[in-house]
Amino acid sequence: MDTGESSVDFIPVLGYIAGFCTTVAFLPQVYRAWRTKSCKDLSPGMLILFASGILLWLVYGILIQELPIVIANGATFLLVILIVFLKFRFD
Amino acid sequence: MDTGESSVDFIPVLGYIAGFCTTVAFLPQVYRAWRTKSCKDLSPGMLILFASGILLWLVYGILIQELPIVIANGATFLLVILIVFLKFRFD
Repeated sequence: MDTGESSVDFIPVLGYIAGFCTTVAFLPQVYRAWRTKSCKDLSPGMLILFASGILLWLVYGILIQELPIVIANGATFLLVILIVFLKFRFD
Repeated sequence: MDTGESSVDFIPVLGYIAGFCTTVAFLPQVYRAWRTKSCKDLSPGMLILFASGILLWLVYGILIQELPIVIANGATFLLVILIVFLKFRFD
């Protein structure tokens, strides 16, 4: 019986699933922006604040040494920057 | 001289600033959706995946006992649900 150990192992897995969802979420948004050639309903304030915050979460994840936070926010940052690029291109 | 202690204190502050940015980011998005009465450019897949992921981050934050993660994701979840509501109402 080693239930303590297995409950510790579960937490990073939950973090990876959470990070997978919040990161992969931006793929349909990138696809929709590319397909419709429109990002008008995306607030520029939202994109700037969100990209800044994600970059800070990345630094925070590095400092508390939580790999799920580092990987998820690193990938999300790249996708959000791509959406910012599409908005500036299409709007 | 207690630099070790003060460097530990800095990390939660960074987490709170990161959480403030990624949460407050959704306020201009809610305002824009309300003002334009349009959420067409917001991908429904993005909203569903993102809301699910934020809920999992909330549980993850509770489990690793990181209050910045709990507060930020709790508040973000409420704002994203509001955007989902506005999308279903306007589109």
